[in-house]
Amino acid sequence: MSQISYELTIQPENQKILVPSDTTLLEAITEAGVNITAACGGKASCGKCRIIIEDGNLPLPTDIELSVLTEEQLRSGMRLACRTKLDSDMVITVPDTSRSLEVRILMGGASHPVELSPNVSKHYLELPTQALTEAVSLFNHLCRTLDLRADASLRSEPALSLSKGQALRADLALLQRLPNVLDAWNNKLTAVVCDGKLIALEQGDTTKRCYGIALDVGTTTIVGALIDLTTGEDVATTSMVNPQSTYGHDVISRINFAIGGEHSLDELQLAVISAINQIIASLIKSSKVKSEEIYEMTVVGNSTMFHLLLGIHPRSLGTMPYVPVVSHSVDVNAADLGILQVNPAANVHILPNIAGFIGADSVGAILAANFDKAEDDSIKIMADMGTNCEIILRKNDQLFACSAAAGPAFEGAKIKHGMYAGPGAIESVSLNDDCEYKTIGKVTPKGICGSGLVDLGAELLRVGIVDATGRMLAPDELNDKISPQLQKRLVKNETDGILEFVIANSENNAPITLTQRDVRELQLAKAAIRTGIEVLLRQAGLQLDDVDELCVAGGFGNYLNKENAIRLGLIPEMPLARIKFIGNAAFIGAKMALISRDIRDRADKVARSTQHLQIADTPDFQTLYMESMMF
Amino acid sequence: MSQISYELTIQPENQKILVPSDTTLLEAITEAGVNITAACGGKASCGKCRIIIEDGNLPLPTDIELSVLTEEQLRSGMRLACRTKLDSDMVITVPDTSRSLEVRILMGGASHPVELSPNVSKHYLELPTQALTEAVSLFNHLCRTLDLRADASLRSEPALSLSKGQALRADLALLQRLPNVLDAWNNKLTAVVCDGKLIALEQGDTTKRCYGIALDVGTTTIVGALIDLTTGEDVATTSMVNPQSTYGHDVISRINFAIGGEHSLDELQLAVISAINQIIASLIKSSKVKSEEIYEMTVVGNSTMFHLLLGIHPRSLGTMPYVPVVSHSVDVNAADLGILQVNPAANVHILPNIAGFIGADSVGAILAANFDKAEDDSIKIMADMGTNCEIILRKNDQLFACSAAAGPAFEGAKIKHGMYAGPGAIESVSLNDDCEYKTIGKVTPKGICGSGLVDLGAELLRVGIVDATGRMLAPDELNDKISPQLQKRLVKNETDGILEFVIANSENNAPITLTQRDVRELQLAKAAIRTGIEVLLRQAGLQLDDVDELCVAGGFGNYLNKENAIRLGLIPEMPLARIKFIGNAAFIGAKMALISRDIRDRADKVARSTQHLQIADTPDFQTLYMESMMF
Repeated sequence: MSQISYELTIQPENQKILVPSDTTLLEAITEAGVNITAACGGKASCGKCRIIIEDGNLPLPTDIELSVLTEEQLRSGMRLACRTKLDSDMVITVPDTSRSLEVRILMGGASHPVELSPNVSKHYLELPTQALTEAVSLFNHLCRTLDLRADASLRSEPALSLSKGQALRADLALLQRLPNVLDAWNNKLTAVVCDGKLIALEQGDTTKRCYGIALDVGTTTIVGALIDLTTGEDVATTSMVNPQSTYGHDVISRINFAIGGEHSLDELQLAVISAINQIIASLIKSSKVKSEEIYEMTVVGNSTMFHLLLGIHPRSLGTMPYVPVVSHSVDVNAADLGILQVNPAANVHILPNIAGFIGADSVGAILAANFDKAEDDSIKIMADMGTNCEIILRKNDQLFACSAAAGPAFEGAKIKHGMYAGPGAIESVSLNDDCEYKTIGKVTPKGICGSGLVDLGAELLRVGIVDATGRMLAPDELNDKISPQLQKRLVKNETDGILEFVIANSENNAPITLTQRDVRELQLAKAAIRTGIEVLLRQAGLQLDDVDELCVAGGFGNYLNKENAIRLGLIPEMPLARIKFIGNAAFIGAKMALISRDIRDRADKVARSTQHLQIADTPDFQTLYMESMMF
Repeated sequence: MSQISYELTIQPENQKILVPSDTTLLEAITEAGVNITAACGGKASCGKCRIIIEDGNLPLPTDIELSVLTEEQLRSGMRLACRTKLDSDMVITVPDTSRSLEVRILMGGASHPVELSPNVSKHYLELPTQALTEAVSLFNHLCRTLDLRADASLRSEPALSLSKGQALRADLALLQRLPNVLDAWNNKLTAVVCDGKLIALEQGDTTKRCYGIALDVGTTTIVGALIDLTTGEDVATTSMVNPQSTYGHDVISRINFAIGGEHSLDELQLAVISAINQIIASLIKSSKVKSEEIYEMTVVGNSTMFHLLLGIHPRSLGTMPYVPVVSHSVDVNAADLGILQVNPAANVHILPNIAGFIGADSVGAILAANFDKAEDDSIKIMADMGTNCEIILRKNDQLFACSAAAGPAFEGAKIKHGMYAGPGAIESVSLNDDCEYKTIGKVTPKGICGSGLVDLGAELLRVGIVDATGRMLAPDELNDKISPQLQKRLVKNETDGILEFVIANSENNAPITLTQRDVRELQLAKAAIRTGIEVLLRQAGLQLDDVDELCVAGGFGNYLNKENAIRLGLIPEMPLARIKFIGNAAFIGAKMALISRDIRDRADKVARSTQHLQIADTPDFQTLYMESMMF
C-alpha cells in the first residue's frame, strides 16, 4: 500500500509541504526549513515546540499535552509538534515563542549557531486587581501573571525557564520589597528571572535592556565582552594584562606566592577582581549600558585562576595529587565577590574545570569547537596555546585532555620585547635580504606578539641564525649565504652581553629585538605542546596520520602562519588543510555559556566526562620531552 | 492451582513468615511487623527499602536497582524489598539504615508516629589519601566519601537526603574553608548536610550533637521547644508573652501600627526577634546544648506574625482583598533574620500560610491532627482557639477553613486578671454555696487562665449572675436562690464603677475578679467561634449532627471542662464523646515539621489545597454573628 500524504501549510510563512501520514509535525516543520525550537530533541520533555492547529482535524490531546498545556491553550488548538501526526490536510501557526532565537557564533572564519536562551530573562507585567474570592498572595499573584505572560502563545517573549509545577523562588529581600513597589509603581513592573528565581523588580517596561559579561581570565591576559542578552550580540570587547602577573608569570609561581603569606591569597584575589572591575568600567564606558542593566556574568580560566578568583586556596593544585578544591561550576553573587559595577542581584557563573591543570578555559574551548558533539567519527585535536597549553583529543565520543606549561611567550610576556596582539605589535616577519615585518594597525612597531614570534623563530631557523638545538649562532659562526644586512642585525646586547636579533626600531629609536633567551622560551613552549599531543595520541592508541583536524586555539590564533608554525615544530607536520585556527576558543565558550543555558549543561557534562592525563606521569615522558625540545 | 508459598526469615530478628510467591518482600516484611522504611510507598522511587539476601535465590537486579545500588552492593546481595519477590525460601537482613526511626508525638492524651527524617543530618568522615590516577577535587572527594558512608549498608546513620545523581551543594564560604580545615583536622571531620546542601564542617565526630528549635509565634504568646534531632525528643520547652502585645492586642492593631510609621515594621520585627532570642537563650540555659549545635528552626504563626517576623509589610492583610504578600513556606538563614544564638549556618523554616487570616499555625494544627490524611470518611472539625480562632472542617479529602477574631481572652490577655496557663492561674471554678477554684501548681492564685474563664463564665450563667444577653445583673436584681456568699462577691469596682465578681484574693490580698467587660470579651470570642463553625458547615453542605469529631485546640485545651464549654456556647451542643481536646496543635505541627521533611511536604500541600472562606463575605453573616452572641 502506498503511503498517504497530506498537505501541511505553515503560518505565518504560508509555506506548504507534503507530509507522509506517519511523520510528526516537528519533523515536517524542520524539513520545511521553518525554525522551531525543540530543546529536548522531540522527546516531549521540554514542551517548547507548541504550534496552533488553525485548520484540519484537531487530534485529542495526549497525556503529555494535557500536563504541559492549559485547558484554554488546548481549546485554542495548541498542541506539541513532536506529538502530533497528520490525518488530514492541515494549516498550522508556529508562534514566535516556539521559534528558537539563534545566534551565529563566529570562530576561525566559520560560524555556528547557538540557541539564544540566556539564564536571565525579563518579563513586563501589569498585575490586575484581584477578586476577593480568588485572591492569592501578592507573590503568587505576580507568579500567576508571569505564567500567563510566558504562556501567551503569540508573544515573542523569552520563555520562562520553569518546568510546570516548579515554583518561582525569591530571596527574602525581594519579598520584603514586593508590597512597597507594587503600590509605588501602580502594579506595572518588569520581573527579572534568573535560573528559576525572581532576582529583581523594575519599574515599568525595561525588557529591552538586559546585558551580560563574558570573561576569559587568563594567566597573562584578561578579556571581557559585554553582550546584549536580548539578541546575543557583542556590544563591546576589551582586554588587559592580568595584574597577578606581578606575582609570577605562571600558575606555579602564583600558587607558591599564595602559600607564602597569610594574606597572599586575598592579595591575588583582590588583584583579579580589581582587573575585572576595570574591564567592566571600560565596557560600560564604551557603550550606553548602565551597570544595573548587567545581570549575569560567565567566566572561564584555568583551574588556578578559578581558585584565585573565588578566594579558594590553590595549594592542593601545587602538590600531589594536584587536585583542585572545587571542579564543578560555581554560581555566586557578583557583589559577594566584590564585583560592583553590575546589578546587585547579578550572578557570576564560573564554568567547571576538568582537573588541576585542565580548567574551565579548556571546557570553554571544547564547547566552542563543538568537540563534545560527535557528529562524525573524525579524530580531532585541539591545542589551546596560552601560558598553559591544553591539548584535547576527540575520538568518537571520548575526550582526552592534558596540559603542559608553555609559558607566556605567545601572549608576549617573558619575551624581552613581547606584547599582546594589539596596535603596534609585529605580527608577521620574513627574512630575505633583510628583515621585513608587518605591525598590527600598520603603525610604528612597539613590540612583537605571538604570531610574529613564531614567524621570526621559524625564519631564524630557516636562514640558519638559530640551529636545531635552539642556539643562536655567534656573528662569526654565521653562514656566508646570510645577507650582510641580516648579519648586521645579530648583536650582543651591551648591558647583559646576551645575543639578540634586531627586528626594528621603535618610535623612540630603541631597538626591538629577539634574544637568545626569547628563543629558549619559544623552545620550551614548543616542547610542551608537542609532548602533550604525543602523549594523547599514545593514550588513545592513535598516530599523527589518524588525525583529521588539528584546531589551534589561542589569543594569537587567527594570524598564525601555518608553514612557519610547522617549521618551528609548534605544530606537527601534517597537510595544511587539516590545520584550523580557531582563535580564542575559551573566550568564545564563555560567550556561548552567557547566552545559552544548554551550553552550561554541556559544559558540566564535558567537565565530568573528559579523561585527563597527568602528562608528567606518562611513561617515557622525559624522553619525549627532550626529543620535542629540538627544533 | 493452589499458590506456592515460601518461608521468609528476617534477620537480625530471626522472624519467620510464610509468603505467597507473588508477594513482594516489602509487603512480607511489613506483614511480619518488622519496621522497614519505604518513603515512596513501594514505588521504587525512594530507593530506601534496601535489604540483603543472605540465603536463597538471588534474583537478577532490575533496572531500577541497577541505577540505585552500586555494583558492590548488588554483589553483596543487596536489593530493594519493593522490587523483589520470592521464588525460594529466603533469609534476609533488614539493615538499620532501611528501618524508619519513628518518634511518637503526644497529643491530647493519644500519640501518633512521625518518621524521624530531619532536614539536617550529620555524617562523620575520614577522607582517605587519593591515588594520583583517580584523584578528584577535594570537594568531590568529600562528596564521594559521604556517598559511600550513607550507602554503608549496616550503619545506623541518617540517610543523606540526596537522590542519586543529584550533586551536593555548598556555599562559597564553605568551599573557601575546605582546604584549610582538611589540612588542620587531618581529614577527620563531620559534614553537616541540610536539604541537599553542605552547610558546615566540624572537627572530629560530632554526629551525636544535633538540635533544632520549634516555635509557635502566637499573637499573644510565643512558645519554643528545643528538640534533639538525632532522637526527635523534646529537651526543653519555654514560653513568653509576645512583646508585640504592647503595640496592640490583636493582629489588626499591629497591622495598623505597622502602617503608622516609617520604622514601625522594623520595631515590630525587632520585638519578635528579640523574644525568640530570649526563648533560645532560656532553652540553652536549661539544657547542656550549645548555640552552635542548633542547626534548624521551624516556625508556625498566623499570617500577620509570619509577615512581621520576616519583616514583610503586612498592610495587604488589612485591606481588601486581605491577601498576604507571601503564602509559601520560607527558608531563611537564622543570622540574616537576627537570630544569633544558633549555628551561623542554621536555617529557619517558616511553614506556609493558607490565606490572609489562616496562617501557618492552622497548617501546623491540621498536620498535628492528621486532618490531611483522610483515612476514613468521617467528618471532623477543629477549632484552634487562639487570639485568632481558626476553624477547619474536613470532609472526605477536602479541607475548608475560616478564621474569626476571638480576642486574646483565652490566653489571659485583655481580661482584667487574666494570665497564661502557668503556676498560680485559676484553671477551674465551680459555684455552689460559695466560689470554689483550683490553681495550677496548687499555689495562692495570681490570676485566671482560659479554662478557668470558661468555667466561671458557664457557672455565672448557670446560677443566674449573668443573663443570656451577657449582662451581669446588679446586686439588687439577683435571684434569691443565689447564696448570700455568692451574692456578696458581686461588687461595683470603686475606681471605675464597673460590676465585677470576686473570685479570690491574691497573695497581697488584692481581689482577683471577673468584670462585666471580661464577660463581654468571652461573649465575643464565643460568637466568633460559633459563627465560624456554622459558616463552614453551610459551605460544606453539612449539619452539626453530621460531625463525627470536634477537635478543640489551643494553649488551654487539655484542661477545658466540656460541659461548661457547651453551656457557655463555646462548643456547640453535641455528645461529649465526640469532643476531643488536642492541646496546642499548631505547636505540635511545628515540632513535627522540625523532625520530618515529609511533614514539610505535607504542609506545603495543605497550604495549597485548603479552601478558605472569607467569613465576613458569607451571606447572613451579620445575622449568624448576632445570633451567636447570645449565651
